[in-house]
Amino acid sequence: MDKIKVGILGATGLVGQRFIQLLENHPFFEVSAVAASSKSAGQSYAEAVKGRWKLETHIPKNVSGLVVKECVPSPQDFDCKIVFSALDAEIALGIERAFADAGYVVCSNSKCHRMDPDVPLIVPEVNQEHLAIIPLQKKQRGSKGFIVTNPNCTTIGLVLALAPIHKKFGIKKIFVTTMQALSGAGYPGVTSLDILDNVIPYIGGEEEKIETETLKLLGKITGRDKFEYADIKVSAHCNRVAVKDGHLECVSIGLEKKATIEGLMKCITEFNPLKGLNLPSAPDPPIIIKEDENRPQPRFDRDYGKGMTSCVGRIRKCNILDWRLVLLSHNTIRGAAGASILNAELLKAKGYVK
Amino acid sequence: MDKIKVGILGATGLVGQRFIQLLENHPFFEVSAVAASSKSAGQSYAEAVKGRWKLETHIPKNVSGLVVKECVPSPQDFDCKIVFSALDAEIALGIERAFADAGYVVCSNSKCHRMDPDVPLIVPEVNQEHLAIIPLQKKQRGSKGFIVTNPNCTTIGLVLALAPIHKKFGIKKIFVTTMQALSGAGYPGVTSLDILDNVIPYIGGEEEKIETETLKLLGKITGRDKFEYADIKVSAHCNRVAVKDGHLECVSIGLEKKATIEGLMKCITEFNPLKGLNLPSAPDPPIIIKEDENRPQPRFDRDYGKGMTSCVGRIRKCNILDWRLVLLSHNTIRGAAGASILNAELLKAKGYVK
Amino acid sequence: MDKIKVGILGATGLVGQRFIQLLENHPFFEVSAVAASSKSAGQSYAEAVKGRWKLETHIPKNVSGLVVKECVPSPQDFDCKIVFSALDAEIALGIERAFADAGYVVCSNSKCHRMDPDVPLIVPEVNQEHLAIIPLQKKQRGSKGFIVTNPNCTTIGLVLALAPIHKKFGIKKIFVTTMQALSGAGYPGVTSLDILDNVIPYIGGEEEKIETETLKLLGKITGRDKFEYADIKVSAHCNRVAVKDGHLECVSIGLEKKATIEGLMKCITEFNPLKGLNLPSAPDPPIIIKEDENRPQPRFDRDYGKGMTSCVGRIRKCNILDWRLVLLSHNTIRGAAGASILNAELLKAKGYVK
Amino acid sequence: MDKIKVGILGATGLVGQRFIQLLENHPFFEVSAVAASSKSAGQSYAEAVKGRWKLETHIPKNVSGLVVKECVPSPQDFDCKIVFSALDAEIALGIERAFADAGYVVCSNSKCHRMDPDVPLIVPEVNQEHLAIIPLQKKQRGSKGFIVTNPNCTTIGLVLALAPIHKKFGIKKIFVTTMQALSGAGYPGVTSLDILDNVIPYIGGEEEKIETETLKLLGKITGRDKFEYADIKVSAHCNRVAVKDGHLECVSIGLEKKATIEGLMKCITEFNPLKGLNLPSAPDPPIIIKEDENRPQPRFDRDYGKGMTSCVGRIRKCNILDWRLVLLSHNTIRGAAGASILNAELLKAKGYVK
Repeated sequence: MDKIKVGILGATGLVGQRFIQLLENHPFFEVSAVAASSKSAGQSYAEAVKGRWKLETHIPKNVSGLVVKECVPSPQDFDCKIVFSALDAEIALGIERAFADAGYVVCSNSKCHRMDPDVPLIVPEVNQEHLAIIPLQKKQRGSKGFIVTNPNCTTIGLVLALAPIHKKFGIKKIFVTTMQALSGAGYPGVTSLDILDNVIPYIGGEEEKIETETLKLLGKITGRDKFEYADIKVSAHCNRVAVKDGHLECVSIGLEKKATIEGLMKCITEFNPLKGLNLPSAPDPPIIIKEDENRPQPRFDRDYGKGMTSCVGRIRKCNILDWRLVLLSHNTIRGAAGASILNAELLKAKGYVK
Repeated sequence: MDKIKVGILGATGLVGQRFIQLLENHPFFEVSAVAASSKSAGQSYAEAVKGRWKLETHIPKNVSGLVVKECVPSPQDFDCKIVFSALDAEIALGIERAFADAGYVVCSNSKCHRMDPDVPLIVPEVNQEHLAIIPLQKKQRGSKGFIVTNPNCTTIGLVLALAPIHKKFGIKKIFVTTMQALSGAGYPGVTSLDILDNVIPYIGGEEEKIETETLKLLGKITGRDKFEYADIKVSAHCNRVAVKDGHLECVSIGLEKKATIEGLMKCITEFNPLKGLNLPSAPDPPIIIKEDENRPQPRFDRDYGKGMTSCVGRIRKCNILDWRLVLLSHNTIRGAAGASILNAELLKAKGYVK
Repeated sequence: MDKIKVGILGATGLVGQRFIQLLENHPFFEVSAVAASSKSAGQSYAEAVKGRWKLETHIPKNVSGLVVKECVPSPQDFDCKIVFSALDAEIALGIERAFADAGYVVCSNSKCHRMDPDVPLIVPEVNQEHLAIIPLQKKQRGSKGFIVTNPNCTTIGLVLALAPIHKKFGIKKIFVTTMQALSGAGYPGVTSLDILDNVIPYIGGEEEKIETETLKLLGKITGRDKFEYADIKVSAHCNRVAVKDGHLECVSIGLEKKATIEGLMKCITEFNPLKGLNLPSAPDPPIIIKEDENRPQPRFDRDYGKGMTSCVGRIRKCNILDWRLVLLSHNTIRGAAGASILNAELLKAKGYVK
Repeated sequence: MDKIKVGILGATGLVGQRFIQLLENHPFFEVSAVAASSKSAGQSYAEAVKGRWKLETHIPKNVSGLVVKECVPSPQDFDCKIVFSALDAEIALGIERAFADAGYVVCSNSKCHRMDPDVPLIVPEVNQEHLAIIPLQKKQRGSKGFIVTNPNCTTIGLVLALAPIHKKFGIKKIFVTTMQALSGAGYPGVTSLDILDNVIPYIGGEEEKIETETLKLLGKITGRDKFEYADIKVSAHCNRVAVKDGHLECVSIGLEKKATIEGLMKCITEFNPLKGLNLPSAPDPPIIIKEDENRPQPRFDRDYGKGMTSCVGRIRKCNILDWRLVLLSHNTIRGAAGASILNAELLKAKGYVK
């Protein structure tokens, strides 16, 4: 089988690097184009990231020699069907739409189109039926391409871990306090003098993203043309801590139906909606329960399922809502590049990309 | 004025060291006795803490030469009126009672007597009227001495910051997620391999302490003989982070009466119930509001009022309960040694120690 | 081919865990016995390390059910030919000798027999000819088994990186300042309050080990019965820094023969004495030169060759001796468990174990 | 006595903030002007550093309201006699000379004039006699003002600690490996993803500064017109570690004359050349010897003498040169702002400023 060619927008940043790392030897996809700001354009990828490659693995050989392009759709620069976007939100808006208009399938990690009424915001295990909006998007925009998005790095861990509980018991309220990793701020991101021996109890825009994206993700698609948001109240406190990768979240939830601890654990353990689809990046299982009382922990539990598995622990009664738990997911893999790639794999499996 | 002589039980540990540091040149008190386990007994204090003195200041000269005693009340070893207890909970129970029985005033930082029905659990700014239980304690126990306790390091920051709001608007529900400093675990405490690039989402017994001590502290004393716990629901998630000192807490609260942000800020700003008592360790004001959106932060805000001030920020609406905020307090000063010393100062001011 | 059965002494500690991790699916060896202190003996391995398994990978399935034995040689408990020793030095002395006397091949990571005149101290790329002392050891001790040791975690990185230079140009003087990882101190090891925002400029016994082991490693074996130490002066400063794994060393060297930078780089790059032996843990190449001016760095460069490769950078002139460079090696893999395993692989390849 | 008015160039950066902190309530000096880049000019100082004030103390009240000026000498903007320069080297060159030409005494922390043949590079305890070059500087430049510099933050700790040994025994060779604090890189400086769980074995230009400035500082002034560099060979390895403040240095030295450990300790302990001058920032004593085998350590030993004292430990024989030791000094106090202020105090005491 020939691999589908893909391009990466924003390829030199931290999330762009993760895309390149995760797509090395990917069974479906092959990186044929990398693009970044005009500052990097014209250099080989290896030159463009010299001194700024921040992963512990080497730059894949087939990518290091690619010439970095500017983020402008043109058939000669982007000989590919899919483009993954790791662009910063400030510039992503116009660029992503231009690529969709030019016929590319855009799998975006940026925030700018997530809440658009005709753009699906997807976590494959949670709401793959939302892809049904794509024909409407293409029609309304008059484009052959389209945009699919994945949620913010913090939302994705939260929603994935809560999805089986929501399906079984109906979640009505979510309290969440996050302790988020440094890599979530990109590179250079957080300066060391701000975080050594410290916690920063604020991340711009993050609480709002969790409080809105969650509602779309756990909501329904009505007909093939309208998203109905879930009727859930979400309250988030976001913090930055001195951790490299892995967002940890303390969660309390209120449920519609009565649950037991056994019922909660069972529905999480049995949850595996992608089983049988054979998506290369889909973790099996998608959620692991750690039973030790002091887990999950970022350094020890972020890498399960090659960073695509969410990890849950400390399920126990709450004194105000119904249940409390702790969850963890890898923010630059499951929460960013890996999420977009899994979306693209789903699009291929469902026939949206051929 | 002659200073009141004081002794320190558990003087060689991390909290014991703080007692000694904070009591250097104290206007009311003078350290005349230090006690620790039999392992240290007989050595000079300087010898006993050699290689284990963990504060950035020097050992006070008048203490370094004191011979360390065992924690057994005897007039010759403890020529003092007050003993401060920094003992571990496992051994504190019997020792503290023995000192009270022998006629000493015991200001304890350990957990073992905090919830006793005849022992006051005191934060001077919050519930000094609870001292009225002391005569009952003495009578019931048939002792001339008595025990006064201060809360757990996490509870104290929470209750101090919420006290003015509770007094004005009546708190009914408290969600709190803590990010607690390493010094809270004592020395050696948390091993570096467990916390580097990590967060530990569990601290044994801590959530229970917050959920119970808060109710006693914010409750009432009925007559002079009975504590009536506050009718508040508290739900706590406790985490350990890589911070030296300073417990940070993300809090959501539900109120009995309607409040505005101005009303909340005003009641906090005006709160200063110890004004006029001239207690040397009482911070003025006891609570500071930081208006920057990313404060308070442990490293930058833990040392206000010599570590006795609580710092509050990010007061904003909550989507589930009424209000959200972030608070910080220094765990080994305001949350431990400084708390006990302030209690002793209050006892002196109120005539319980002469 | 049947795998050779191996046992692990001190299997529950940090280095013991590394042995078990690195031996999972090993092509030559199969773990059939694990032993630790009497406190753990009788439990399954999984029970014995519950809450103390400190690696980011899972416990291998075939080991988690093994019953932990005491460190006493007996054919029923130790149905194996080789035992790897991760024992603490205080107890290793007698135990290792007892196993050798009982006929086992002991590959030891502990310090206690390293400098024995009839025990080889081996880095396979550096001095495999020292194995020729083994017959003498067996004869003198009257034992069928024997002991082979690997150097201290800091020495091994130093000696491996300098070996090609020494062979080509003759090293006469070595200045080395180390910045050593936390895992080098074992578990629990360094407490977090001692290392957060800090460096500890002292590691007990470490400087002496570097200054003596280096001389044996780079020395000769005369006949088959005597080690002649290298005529090199070594001066070491050892420091502990807040790094999880990977010892970094700043080195200045004085040479017997004149060298150019090209000559130095060439001899390092061409160095690959194990090529052709097909030892599973032998990295190819054993030493990598990083040309960026700010490398090697522990987090980014410690994992090359699955942690068995040494990494060198910043080769430049020295104002006092001849050359300066920076080197890095993974202290619990190349510097401990991986070193012992590579030694065992060499013993098999050379016919010392069948 | 009226205080001498002073201005601060580069007042908003990390070193500029230290100047302002250290000059609060200074007995000789009073801050009357603050200057920074045109981006900040026109704002009040408090506005200019909003969100970027990185010290744990508050902004002094008398400074927070000062209007920030541009770094251009004019009598109305700079109503002061002395200006302290915390400017980056790239822009300091012209600005500092312009202020000297305009008649100001410039006490500079930047590197750009340090090695000028008519500019004194001063550590008051070490080479105050070098001030004798000032008349020549004024004459050659035809200016009424002049420039005095202090060394690089790493050099200053090294030279201060070694000065008594050099005076007594004659130093000929210095090997030094540094472990330098994050604050030495300014703000934002080192990004957290580069230093968490890591060490960076390179700091641009730093090794060269140590290797040259040391020779000028420990050299002589011949007549009143020429510096004669010390005949010392210096070899430096510089590293960045995850420490907030305090540069730690491992040093080996070769001496002209034979020394004993008692002789070394005695000459350090007796060293106090500023005694009697009553300079407010001069620490008494300037160097402390810590006898514990694992000291000095940055977090515990950087603040002696309000950050102006150098701390020495682990004095022991070296296997290659004569002696080894470890030293520590606070890089933004003794190594930057405090150094310039002490220079200004010396200038006043010696009559160079009236």
